[in-house]
Amino acid sequence: MLIGQFTLPLAFDLAATFFFAITGALTAMRKEYDLVGVFFLALVTGLGGGLLRDGVFLQLVPAVLTSPYLLTVLAAMALGLVFGEALNRLALAFLLVDALGLGLYAVVGVQKTLSAGLDWVPALLVGIINAIGGGLLRDLITRQDPLVFRPGEFYAAAAMAGGAAFLILALPLGVAAQPAALGGIAVTILVRLASVHFGWRTPTARALIRRRD
Amino acid sequence: MLIGQFTLPLAFDLAATFFFAITGALTAMRKEYDLVGVFFLALVTGLGGGLLRDGVFLQLVPAVLTSPYLLTVLAAMALGLVFGEALNRLALAFLLVDALGLGLYAVVGVQKTLSAGLDWVPALLVGIINAIGGGLLRDLITRQDPLVFRPGEFYAAAAMAGGAAFLILALPLGVAAQPAALGGIAVTILVRLASVHFGWRTPTARALIRRRD
Amino acid sequence: MLIGQFTLPLAFDLAATFFFAITGALTAMRKEYDLVGVFFLALVTGLGGGLLRDGVFLQLVPAVLTSPYLLTVLAAMALGLVFGEALNRLALAFLLVDALGLGLYAVVGVQKTLSAGLDWVPALLVGIINAIGGGLLRDLITRQDPLVFRPGEFYAAAAMAGGAAFLILALPLGVAAQPAALGGIAVTILVRLASVHFGWRTPTARALIRRRD
Repeated sequence: MLIGQFTLPLAFDLAATFFFAITGALTAMRKEYDLVGVFFLALVTGLGGGLLRDGVFLQLVPAVLTSPYLLTVLAAMALGLVFGEALNRLALAFLLVDALGLGLYAVVGVQKTLSAGLDWVPALLVGIINAIGGGLLRDLITRQDPLVFRPGEFYAAAAMAGGAAFLILALPLGVAAQPAALGGIAVTILVRLASVHFGWRTPTARALIRRRD
Repeated sequence: MLIGQFTLPLAFDLAATFFFAITGALTAMRKEYDLVGVFFLALVTGLGGGLLRDGVFLQLVPAVLTSPYLLTVLAAMALGLVFGEALNRLALAFLLVDALGLGLYAVVGVQKTLSAGLDWVPALLVGIINAIGGGLLRDLITRQDPLVFRPGEFYAAAAMAGGAAFLILALPLGVAAQPAALGGIAVTILVRLASVHFGWRTPTARALIRRRD
Repeated sequence: MLIGQFTLPLAFDLAATFFFAITGALTAMRKEYDLVGVFFLALVTGLGGGLLRDGVFLQLVPAVLTSPYLLTVLAAMALGLVFGEALNRLALAFLLVDALGLGLYAVVGVQKTLSAGLDWVPALLVGIINAIGGGLLRDLITRQDPLVFRPGEFYAAAAMAGGAAFLILALPLGVAAQPAALGGIAVTILVRLASVHFGWRTPTARALIRRRD
């Protein structure tokens, strides 16, 4: 039912790639990588989630291997090089755009997995991996503890909430794919911003156990 | 000849996933990951070997992307959270079950690679990767030196012995697939337990060179 | 036009695998891995680029999963174990052979991506990944900062130059595939050796920004 009915404008996808790629470029610049390294870390951060989704999970030639995506990464790298650390000061803009990218990737990952004929459980999983994969690979390569797994603001949890909202809207409730996708993206952004604004912290296992005592 | 004749009950596969996933969950809890992180490390450890086998080597949509496997990981995570470190004390039970999982994954990896029409050399390789892949990815993500590559008890070597035994039983000796598989699993468990009991250590290159002098 | 017309003797491919694998084996020996670890690091370094190219990007069963390649890795491991650190002294021979492998992998990666029906931009990208992937995975597993991304001699840049030369020769200039490939390999080797000989350093973002002031 969802197959073919659900398309998002390519501009959204490219915007998410663009801003995720900027975070990769800035990380590489901080680590004093050379220009090739800055490009590859921007690439991995901007497109890594889609690469895991298509290349490893869904067995499709990665959609990201097309010129628009790669040129988007180059543009993000150029922006990072030109404006450098100044971009780090636009913290609120970054937070918003990053949350938008997170929601978009979560919803797209869920939809593509359903389109490939898989169940809703793996669809939710691939949605989350699509959303957090780029940042996870960035942290692996730069040898940082994976930020998305650390107690902190809701990040993977926001992607999960958005993906689940999309699934619930589209499947049992029968909302058409595009409005359901917008709903899922909105839920991701709301959960993400609320967690930052109200200082929500994801619980550790220890906190969970202590609460039971 | 092997194709289609060789099936193992799903319960075996899920049991291996279950116990490997518990080791991932316990590692994540020790590292103070949040609940999302505990889930993902349990997932990677329990299913990473199958993901590498199917998604990267054999170009199949990973078998692990189906609800039974994911629900098994959730159950392992729940068990890890509820019983926590207490589970670490059941060392012998863990050793046995881990060795069972190791043998199962080694044999299944060999069989699936043969079924895909590949040679026995890559089949043995994919069998070992299927067996040790989850632990290797767990160590990569948590930034530990890969345990399976360190001098110590036989681990990858036990998986290799079991995979080789299965190959020899099934191909030149013509044993039917299921008994051959049980033979391979038994060899893995025996080599693994014997190495622990007798304190066998895998040799380093240096030891090998010294022995030649 | 390129498809099917472009074949390189398997011996070249195996030679590149062989020498890359030796660098992996030597790294593992220095890190005191056990023999299984030495084999797997040799395997990852020698064949990792092809695995990423085929298994993740182009969705082909990795060409490297065939006996000739695996036996080549075993031979490289044996050589590493027997001659050990003595090999490290043959620095110039290594540099040459490594540059040859780099150029070969870059050109083969470009060609296979074009054969898969993709554009020249992703072809160049996959060429570079094919060339540097093995070393990148080796550094990830051994928990070193990725050498190819650090300021230093031209390495990924040499692969990029060779891949681009091959593309320009083969596509707009219409040179036949084999001579175009040899041209691309020659460019890679020249750029690599020149960067070592003249002490060229890849620029960091900071150097680039400073230059603009």
